[in-house]
Amino acid sequence: MSHEQFKACIEECLRCMQACNHCYDACLKESHKMDMENCIRLDRECADICAFTAQAMSINSSYAKELCRLCASICEACGNECKNHEHEHCQFCAEACSTCAKSCRAMAA
Amino acid sequence: MSHEQFKACIEECLRCMQACNHCYDACLKESHKMDMENCIRLDRECADICAFTAQAMSINSSYAKELCRLCASICEACGNECKNHEHEHCQFCAEACSTCAKSCRAMAA
Amino acid sequence: MSHEQFKACIEECLRCMQACNHCYDACLKESHKMDMENCIRLDRECADICAFTAQAMSINSSYAKELCRLCASICEACGNECKNHEHEHCQFCAEACSTCAKSCRAMAA
Amino acid sequence: MSHEQFKACIEECLRCMQACNHCYDACLKESHKMDMENCIRLDRECADICAFTAQAMSINSSYAKELCRLCASICEACGNECKNHEHEHCQFCAEACSTCAKSCRAMAA
Repeated sequence: MSHEQFKACIEECLRCMQACNHCYDACLKESHKMDMENCIRLDRECADICAFTAQAMSINSSYAKELCRLCASICEACGNECKNHEHEHCQFCAEACSTCAKSCRAMAA
Repeated sequence: MSHEQFKACIEECLRCMQACNHCYDACLKESHKMDMENCIRLDRECADICAFTAQAMSINSSYAKELCRLCASICEACGNECKNHEHEHCQFCAEACSTCAKSCRAMAA
Repeated sequence: MSHEQFKACIEECLRCMQACNHCYDACLKESHKMDMENCIRLDRECADICAFTAQAMSINSSYAKELCRLCASICEACGNECKNHEHEHCQFCAEACSTCAKSCRAMAA
Repeated sequence: MSHEQFKACIEECLRCMQACNHCYDACLKESHKMDMENCIRLDRECADICAFTAQAMSINSSYAKELCRLCASICEACGNECKNHEHEHCQFCAEACSTCAKSCRAMAA
């Protein structure tokens, strides 16, 4: 894994963290929160694992690859949920999750 | 601040973190989530600052007191919100927040 | 997995987090830090994954089992490192890591 | 506080988090760790508060300003420690801490 791929993966995790947190905040303001339970849950779980994995990569942890693998799974689940909702924040988040998942899968390989 | 008070405050933070996270999970399952937005938000913020403050105390951080002061404020806000809701998980959380706030205020003094 | 085992695993993670953070603080004060690099690193990584996993379990995350599996691996590595050092804080930490690893393995099964 | 200043402060926190974590990793590899205790401690505390504050800003927390104030204090302490050490990673970290502290002070105002 080259230094550039490593650095790029940290950036994707941090970009995804921000998109998920913004989507969480926006979902909580939507009037029909009923349908948004899974989106709210996954947004926060995805933001947290992204932040955690970015920290692990930046301290050069021996567990960075295993965290990237788990982070990719959670990003995929969050992205799949978000893309079902037409809100702009959900669509934006789905895209960030998908990009981050790909970057994490490459790191974990 | 004696070692016992320090240890007790860590325990209260970790107990409050669990109560807030349980309340968050339960609030997301409630059928009238409309009214629960602030409770959901504060539950997660309170759980996170409690976990963060407990870690700071247990590494003997120079910033433990300042974190306890902020943690107390967030616990008070979360407890005040939770006690407005009659669900058992909210009432239980309100009590944990109030106890933790007092312990953190004493640490910060 | 019964509610009791679940609750017990959260408690073990939080107990291990405290032991690892105390060991981290104490290792940084030891005069021969040269030999303590791996212990310092693993203490912090173990404390962080324990806190993260405890939060995941207490919000009832779908990823709790996968996090428990990873948490068990890191606890085992940290415990194996700590038990090589005769300091009381290292021996205490090794014991907490070993107990937590067992509890997490059972949760992950 | 404009949206641009808000977004810029999140970016500075995440940049500082990476610089602190890189410095932590590098300090642990230095042969004369004796002198690096405070640097190692502050690097990790600074990285953690930066990550925490960035998350709070990106969920639009009511406590973002108070966290920015505390984050600024810790960044200043970490930057002041790092600039005493001639290692390139310490000098780079000192600069990131100083920039982040200014951005957080502006947010907290």
